[in-house]
Amino acid sequence: MTLTGRLDPRSGWRAAQCPIARALDVVHNRSAFLILREAFYGTTRFDDFGARVGISESVAAARLKDLVAAGLLEQQPYRDPGERTRQEYRLTEMGADFLPVLAAMMQWGERWLGPARVRMQHHDCGGDVRAEVRCASGHELTPGDIDLVLDTPDSARS
Amino acid sequence: MTLTGRLDPRSGWRAAQCPIARALDVVHNRSAFLILREAFYGTTRFDDFGARVGISESVAAARLKDLVAAGLLEQQPYRDPGERTRQEYRLTEMGADFLPVLAAMMQWGERWLGPARVRMQHHDCGGDVRAEVRCASGHELTPGDIDLVLDTPDSARS
Repeated sequence: MTLTGRLDPRSGWRAAQCPIARALDVVHNRSAFLILREAFYGTTRFDDFGARVGISESVAAARLKDLVAAGLLEQQPYRDPGERTRQEYRLTEMGADFLPVLAAMMQWGERWLGPARVRMQHHDCGGDVRAEVRCASGHELTPGDIDLVLDTPDSARS
Repeated sequence: MTLTGRLDPRSGWRAAQCPIARALDVVHNRSAFLILREAFYGTTRFDDFGARVGISESVAAARLKDLVAAGLLEQQPYRDPGERTRQEYRLTEMGADFLPVLAAMMQWGERWLGPARVRMQHHDCGGDVRAEVRCASGHELTPGDIDLVLDTPDSARS
């Protein structure tokens, strides 16, 4: 990655408003990532999140509360026959848009840390799912292809 | 996302060998992610990692040690004039391959948590960098397009 313009050298600026840091303020530990994994896998109920992530009830409650407050999950009431009304948790649009992060972690983990038992494939064509870094014109990129640029308010970015 | 075959229902299996969980065993907290961000931004020296991530020397030392042990960073000796030999830290191939995770977090953070001051663009064409989820045939995917399938050893996966 090449730092350009006023971003070069790196010693001349601070990474304020870093969107990666902000994302980590919201999804801030292992259990938060794994609760989101479970939400993508279709888990909706409180007891199931804890059991499937392998965390205690109190940790699950805290993480779910955080993720609802941050806007990634939303609560919806449900009621099993003969039971009281409870809340289930579903991904919001914001939460569903976290897919590229988890897909990229899944790909990286499988590539570098050992085989997985499950994989994602495209329902329609059966092709394996990939997390790709591309530019708006569709070129696939490696770190060496990327410039870091200052996003000035008056830039011509559309 | 649709669970298929023996993966349906979710209550019937445990997420053992989960590559997302394994990735989080290695890159396991905020400072680890942000040290990797800095490595992509060209930071190599111990003092700079701590200052630019905003963590103490002892935390920086622990994280760098972990990331070297896990194989994402490697140490290389350097020597400034009149100084003793020191170690700098550079991304390995395994570390450089973490780019899709950070690019996806950057994109998500910018989209949902507020504007960033920097952005990544393709050096050659100037196009904005995107983190995309696609299948091997190139179709861009949303969660609803994806099946989760059991990766059996005798599958015909190439």
